[in-house]
Amino acid sequence: MKHSADLIPGTVTLVGGGPGDPGLVTVAGLQAVQQADVILYDRLAPQDIMDENPDAEKIPVGKVPRGKYVPQEEINLLLVEHAQQGRKVVRLKGGDSFVFGRGGEEWQACAAAGVPVRIIPGVTSCVAGPELAGVPLTHRHMVQGFTVVSGHVAPGDTRSELDWAQIAKTGTTLVILMGVANIGGISEKLQAGGLAPHTPVAVIGDASLPTQQVLTSTLGEVADDMEQAGIKPPAITVVGDVAGLDLEHTSVHEPSDH
Amino acid sequence: MKHSADLIPGTVTLVGGGPGDPGLVTVAGLQAVQQADVILYDRLAPQDIMDENPDAEKIPVGKVPRGKYVPQEEINLLLVEHAQQGRKVVRLKGGDSFVFGRGGEEWQACAAAGVPVRIIPGVTSCVAGPELAGVPLTHRHMVQGFTVVSGHVAPGDTRSELDWAQIAKTGTTLVILMGVANIGGISEKLQAGGLAPHTPVAVIGDASLPTQQVLTSTLGEVADDMEQAGIKPPAITVVGDVAGLDLEHTSVHEPSDH
Repeated sequence: MKHSADLIPGTVTLVGGGPGDPGLVTVAGLQAVQQADVILYDRLAPQDIMDENPDAEKIPVGKVPRGKYVPQEEINLLLVEHAQQGRKVVRLKGGDSFVFGRGGEEWQACAAAGVPVRIIPGVTSCVAGPELAGVPLTHRHMVQGFTVVSGHVAPGDTRSELDWAQIAKTGTTLVILMGVANIGGISEKLQAGGLAPHTPVAVIGDASLPTQQVLTSTLGEVADDMEQAGIKPPAITVVGDVAGLDLEHTSVHEPSDH
Repeated sequence: MKHSADLIPGTVTLVGGGPGDPGLVTVAGLQAVQQADVILYDRLAPQDIMDENPDAEKIPVGKVPRGKYVPQEEINLLLVEHAQQGRKVVRLKGGDSFVFGRGGEEWQACAAAGVPVRIIPGVTSCVAGPELAGVPLTHRHMVQGFTVVSGHVAPGDTRSELDWAQIAKTGTTLVILMGVANIGGISEKLQAGGLAPHTPVAVIGDASLPTQQVLTSTLGEVADDMEQAGIKPPAITVVGDVAGLDLEHTSVHEPSDH
């Protein structure tokens, strides 16, 4: 078996690191990390895998909620500068780089500077998080699709580009990322859009990590239940009948030791 | 770095094998394949990785479109029987086991028989396929979400559980899996639901493989264009503004040799 090609000096490789468990990075992603001269990594990336490359320069560029962060424009600039110095640059993120990961912007910035980009997709938390909690996003004779949205902008906010009432009507499983702070407003909008208060909801905190936490609730009660359970970001909220399937009690999934 | 735990005799491990490139299986998924006593694999699973375990029994259970296949009930039975013989059983699929992969049904069948199940999520083709073709499913200031549906049932068919007119109204990127045969009817329904004929569409065939094929078109013309280009399953269809972003021309992604 031959895996993906070696990294090329002067290029940027965007690596999706998966939901957090270091075993859930791809073989090609791990190889890229092992070969990198410099790694720009996010807070939610599986940072332990960088131990496999002690010689690489590691630059944290993660965004801490409501805290300090490196602006995206500066990350773009860093990627280009390091590549133009002839280094093998890896951009390591949590999940997949193109699911709310701003991979497209980084790709565009590199392209504008003439820096070639290679893509290594990752296990996206929006799918992996629920399944590790016993919630399949699709299930035969129950639901034939799913919708993934970001909940980081409150429904009433002028910056919101989502039509929650329409999203409530798709008949697909709904997955909300980054929605902890706005879950109250979101659940109201979804009910106003036609979803019943008793619609099953599952919330998965710290998916795939030893600290993983799963809350099952309903659309009408999830805001209160989340506050009571003290669930903190990062968390994934799943709305729909699949959230009521009880698959996880037989699971022997054990996240890796870190 | 410690990866995931060793396989346990008498259990079933559901492994999502990723979109096809053997480098896109996870580290934990590859380890499970290496340790398995028996591997039940799908047609679209990355079969080359099984070369790393020459001693395992390999049982093909894949479904060929319109051809012979092993019924799901029989797959469920095989998983249970092999586990009950005290073997380390791996179920290897393409993509992720819970995105139209019937992983939930296999989990339920094992649970009903008292067989413990372990889940190793995979890189789902619905996200990875588009990004390898330069199509990010989300993009800042363009779209804040995406919807994934199966197109394997024609819109007019009584077995269809999807409301295409509502799906057209979500304002999210739309990803259609298994939609090659029904793309004509689907594109008509989406236009009747309000999407403009000039909405950008990208179709990715054989995502991540050396035979990967990318077609860019519009909703109004995609059915004709797909027929002309001779695109065959498996293919992923992306509908929305992101399909018009031209990111891929700078990519140096090279799928692995097989």
